[in-house]
Amino acid sequence: MWTELLPIGRSSVSGGYRRYAWSGADLDCRAWFRAQAEGRGLTYEVDRNGNQWAWLGDPAAGDAVVTGSHLDSVPDGGAFDGPLGVVSSFAALDELRERGAAFDKPLAIVNFGDEEGARFGLACVGSRLAAGQLTKDKAYALHDADGVSLPQAMEQAGYDPAGIGPDPERLARIGAFVELHVEQGRALDLSGDAVGIASAIWPHGRWRFDFHGEANHAGTTRLEDRRDPMLNYADTVLAARREAQAAGALATFGKVSVEPNGVNAIASLVRGWLDSRAADQETLDRVVAGIEAAAAERGARDGIDVRVTRESFTPVVEFEHALRDEVAKLLGGVVPVLPTGAGHDAGILSASAPTAMLFVRNPTGVSHSPAETAAEDDCLAGVTALADVLEGLACS
Amino acid sequence: MWTELLPIGRSSVSGGYRRYAWSGADLDCRAWFRAQAEGRGLTYEVDRNGNQWAWLGDPAAGDAVVTGSHLDSVPDGGAFDGPLGVVSSFAALDELRERGAAFDKPLAIVNFGDEEGARFGLACVGSRLAAGQLTKDKAYALHDADGVSLPQAMEQAGYDPAGIGPDPERLARIGAFVELHVEQGRALDLSGDAVGIASAIWPHGRWRFDFHGEANHAGTTRLEDRRDPMLNYADTVLAARREAQAAGALATFGKVSVEPNGVNAIASLVRGWLDSRAADQETLDRVVAGIEAAAAERGARDGIDVRVTRESFTPVVEFEHALRDEVAKLLGGVVPVLPTGAGHDAGILSASAPTAMLFVRNPTGVSHSPAETAAEDDCLAGVTALADVLEGLACS
Repeated sequence: MWTELLPIGRSSVSGGYRRYAWSGADLDCRAWFRAQAEGRGLTYEVDRNGNQWAWLGDPAAGDAVVTGSHLDSVPDGGAFDGPLGVVSSFAALDELRERGAAFDKPLAIVNFGDEEGARFGLACVGSRLAAGQLTKDKAYALHDADGVSLPQAMEQAGYDPAGIGPDPERLARIGAFVELHVEQGRALDLSGDAVGIASAIWPHGRWRFDFHGEANHAGTTRLEDRRDPMLNYADTVLAARREAQAAGALATFGKVSVEPNGVNAIASLVRGWLDSRAADQETLDRVVAGIEAAAAERGARDGIDVRVTRESFTPVVEFEHALRDEVAKLLGGVVPVLPTGAGHDAGILSASAPTAMLFVRNPTGVSHSPAETAAEDDCLAGVTALADVLEGLACS
Repeated sequence: MWTELLPIGRSSVSGGYRRYAWSGADLDCRAWFRAQAEGRGLTYEVDRNGNQWAWLGDPAAGDAVVTGSHLDSVPDGGAFDGPLGVVSSFAALDELRERGAAFDKPLAIVNFGDEEGARFGLACVGSRLAAGQLTKDKAYALHDADGVSLPQAMEQAGYDPAGIGPDPERLARIGAFVELHVEQGRALDLSGDAVGIASAIWPHGRWRFDFHGEANHAGTTRLEDRRDPMLNYADTVLAARREAQAAGALATFGKVSVEPNGVNAIASLVRGWLDSRAADQETLDRVVAGIEAAAAERGARDGIDVRVTRESFTPVVEFEHALRDEVAKLLGGVVPVLPTGAGHDAGILSASAPTAMLFVRNPTGVSHSPAETAAEDDCLAGVTALADVLEGLACS
């Protein structure tokens, strides 16, 4: 099952995955999901927002136990972020069938579309739409780097975008959602555990910083006549690290675009995207405000027009304690409980249904990179833990 | 003549020109050149390196007086950088014919191909090849951002790349080359002159800085576990400004590329291109060495592998004094003589033939930008000055 999925969308240059929403690689992943569902005799469906579902039992019965994750990737991402949760869901079902488990409730495995937001710049589009946290209008306004809009991309992939939007009836079927995910940090490695449970997701967001200067010839314009936005950008990158360090938070500039981006031309516009996260809202606000102030201060000095746009924001998510405690009990009660800085579909869904997350140890902590890894034994421990949880929640 | 050329390759979004070598816009400019040549009864030819020539008189007679410039542009460049020299050449010929000038020597107008290097990253490709300053092998190894090689681009444009390389016979025909160009600075504006003469071109070069770090998740990786090359890049951008300022030189990072360039991914690789220039070689060496040292120092601290590649370099060009003095005399002797930081085909050719340059006032000093401008009166003064020089050099 895993080996069929591995080659899809893998770059032969970087060794990383480029499975962008509604791209050819994404469609291949979706075909794989459908084949896994149908091969197990599950009822396959795609919802109005392009999320894929595989049902055991009657979807309309309600109080369903749902598990799954996503199959898309960041640019040059690793093999585990997303796919481990989907593959483990099918494997856990296989294990439960071997155990002869008798299901009292319907069980579903889900692949949420466009979790990473690599193509359209907004994460968790599939679950956000379903949960009513992203309007159809705003989704229609999303465009990729080539100017293709989200609905155009869906249409080109053979999906009808007309019906995207809130899907409360479908979400009301869910009694509990459990997402298994490779850990994106080293907490389990440091504690020596194969599997852990999520306590909360840090509040996090993305801010676009536009530094508008003046294009000019790099070989002839006197330094004092320049309005070079690259200096302002550089200053802000360093300020972001300083502010985050001082607050015990995270702040990263990982994406830049420059106009005209010529070797011998002073830039007219530098755009940098800030990703920032912290344990609580107040700290995050303080960090971002500090970075904005540093950008504006240098901008005023250099004659650069600095504009900051918050492109997305997710408040703190505290996973439901009752479900979390039940999951912990089903796993024997000795499982570490840890927060995470990463956003997940489970975080989006937590507003609509009781939600929990399992993490599988990542020995290096590296993720969103071809170097992301997990040991086979830990992955198998993850499958067993997920099977235990699903059995406890769905079977008598 | 000017109005036919103006719309070619102009972006409706930025208002700037995107006339990249061998692109559709470049071919349209070339067709314009040919039409101008043939419309005046000049003998049109394209040399083996894709440079266009328009001859009045016998090309083989030798001791020719040659004028011209280039028609390609930087990304979102202005209307004058290059085209002003070509248009003024045709206009000067028209003026000389009106004056009834009798030519003793052959006269040629030239459009050198790929002067800006916007597409393949190396400037003055057409003149460098002809002058033997760029080998065929190295030219064949040039690729644009889409992976198209220079010979492929030439072929796609209907030119045979097989014959590119040194063309000493053709250059030996040149008795004197005079290039008119819009000034890329404010020296003439400050001195109050419409036209000036070049004394020298500063030594200049391009260096690519590769900062290799480690891709990771921006939302989960502890600051102390990161190897983020963006910080190293930012630090180096600020160091470049400091070093240039201290030395009275120029240093600019105007082009960047980032991998994977995802909002929530710490970069694995940041590439920044440094353009640096100074009045003399020793100063330039000191500035670049200072920037490299700053990059390496931070790299060692952050665990970033920093590699610097010199992609191009042009030593100082001192224009021939005899021709320069003659040009000054032909212009009445009261013309300002000024150095420039910008590279030109005239700088490349100066190793093969006596070469001079005329500059036309640029009231803002802005160039390589849609805001680049020159007053109509100054452009006409430039045409008259060029006509005077050509008449003095080529007519009895």
